[in-house]
Amino acid sequence: MSVTALFVDSTTIESQVAEARQAVAARTEISRVVLTACGGSYAVMQPIEYLFGTKAKTLESLALNAAEFTSRASSRVDAGTLVILCSHSGTTPETVEAARHARARGALTVAFTFDPSSPLAEAAEYVVAYQHGEGKSEAHVGPALILRLVAGILDDREQAGIGTAIDEAVAQLPVLTENARAAYREDADAWGYASRRDPLIYTMAAGSNYGSAYSFAICLLQEMQWVHSAAIHAGEYFHGPFEITEEDVPFIALLGLDETRPVEQRAVDFVTKHSKRVLVIDAESFGLDSVASEVRGIFAHLLFNVVLRAYADALADHRGHPLSVRRYMWRMEY
Amino acid sequence: MSVTALFVDSTTIESQVAEARQAVAARTEISRVVLTACGGSYAVMQPIEYLFGTKAKTLESLALNAAEFTSRASSRVDAGTLVILCSHSGTTPETVEAARHARARGALTVAFTFDPSSPLAEAAEYVVAYQHGEGKSEAHVGPALILRLVAGILDDREQAGIGTAIDEAVAQLPVLTENARAAYREDADAWGYASRRDPLIYTMAAGSNYGSAYSFAICLLQEMQWVHSAAIHAGEYFHGPFEITEEDVPFIALLGLDETRPVEQRAVDFVTKHSKRVLVIDAESFGLDSVASEVRGIFAHLLFNVVLRAYADALADHRGHPLSVRRYMWRMEY
Repeated sequence: MSVTALFVDSTTIESQVAEARQAVAARTEISRVVLTACGGSYAVMQPIEYLFGTKAKTLESLALNAAEFTSRASSRVDAGTLVILCSHSGTTPETVEAARHARARGALTVAFTFDPSSPLAEAAEYVVAYQHGEGKSEAHVGPALILRLVAGILDDREQAGIGTAIDEAVAQLPVLTENARAAYREDADAWGYASRRDPLIYTMAAGSNYGSAYSFAICLLQEMQWVHSAAIHAGEYFHGPFEITEEDVPFIALLGLDETRPVEQRAVDFVTKHSKRVLVIDAESFGLDSVASEVRGIFAHLLFNVVLRAYADALADHRGHPLSVRRYMWRMEY
Repeated sequence: MSVTALFVDSTTIESQVAEARQAVAARTEISRVVLTACGGSYAVMQPIEYLFGTKAKTLESLALNAAEFTSRASSRVDAGTLVILCSHSGTTPETVEAARHARARGALTVAFTFDPSSPLAEAAEYVVAYQHGEGKSEAHVGPALILRLVAGILDDREQAGIGTAIDEAVAQLPVLTENARAAYREDADAWGYASRRDPLIYTMAAGSNYGSAYSFAICLLQEMQWVHSAAIHAGEYFHGPFEITEEDVPFIALLGLDETRPVEQRAVDFVTKHSKRVLVIDAESFGLDSVASEVRGIFAHLLFNVVLRAYADALADHRGHPLSVRRYMWRMEY
């Protein structure tokens, strides 16, 4: 599949985000938020669930795979529910069905996709079409815009007072991502070379960074590199998974900046003691001093995604296995 | 660690469940339920979250690892919150801390553990001490009692009308588990032999059975067999993980009886087509005709746990690696 640049301009994006935010504000009976998608887009929803889970004073939230969401057919999906969906291409059948399911039950639906004419954009009541492909702005990608919308909702509904700080942080993303890519290029290359023959690489994180670890495990490693993987929750690590740790078992362990950093730190301390093959990526090195401290924790996952992508690119390079190769997707019906 | 038989008698268990249920009924302001634990006990909470997620008309629910729960320090944990916790030994530090955290914030806390004098039993307001060890009744184990309590809560709060059916089903567990063990013994042995040299085995399920797949991956395979694993959500399988499927990649795929069976069936159809190493366990074979059809779906996970244990026992046998061996747990501080 070729990557097509679809330049929804920034003015259109701003008005789409504003329109969705206003629609949520206008529907005062909304008391819960469901965040639903599949795969990499589901991973995007996980830090958003964390933001609600730590900051919300009244709003309930739940993140679910889209097929699971629709199957559950919860009677609690109704006019009091906001359902936020995401599908990159807007064609993921389960996510489109989830949008239809939610909308038919009276929920307010907001979809994120790069294609404003996709089935998902059609199915949902409100759409934010983000940028994608060559020349996109890092401030206008899906995960950043979902974070901005949700911060705005928390401001409107609960006076969370984080929307402006998030907006300002996202505006810095083009510079921050460029700096991060440059800072990690050399280490990523060395890691990609050292890891080129590994049949399995685990990832580990907690809190708002778990989604980045999950996405790397299922999309970058399993899907795009055919390397076995699992995303281990750092808090769960000590209750089972840590027993497979040996000196030659490779891990990527994330150290974020949110409330769960001590949970991640404990796992990092153990895994680095018992395995010689641990890549620790610490968000303290992301250069986020210019981001307001109260939102640095929830913001860091956007940089993890960018930095991890550099490691995936390097791994793909040294394995001679481009990230774009698939054996099932795009090749058959399933 | 030796397994100690602690026979909390059935009369005591019944009165503990009834007492916890009455306490929940009496606190009418409860509007949300948090289910929190670590590892295998966290896996026990996952089908309970599913039960709320499909059946509840008003009650909100969320399942979280206990370290993550405490770290989040959500202001929504208050007198309107029921927090259900579980730790087998009652000594898991993160779960004990979660109980203290929740109770200090005014939440109603109910703990499940086999040891009524454990720190967790001490920390929580209400305790259900279940049976454990040689001679226990399968009707008096933790997962069955949590299910009974929650079904009762849903009856009391929302007239769900499932409590009696669940009670009757749980009462049949001693017979049902014995039958299931006998029915799967031969197949488990053959699978254990065929899998004895596999360095990695994936598990897969959705809905109320995901917890069984998760528990098998992190406790039985990673922890107790030092075999690499990951529990793949059947709905997520097609959005990344399925690309690592090859004819020699081993999977255990569960087919349950709840609303997500079509999601699991789709994954089973794909994985059995592309891998020759798939063990499919179908709850249709569990002989649950005597269980009321409206609760058969949520009930099946209790049998999955028993049947999967038979496969783990066989694997351990053929690998010459007892399930009780650890390299870190019980051997060092961490």
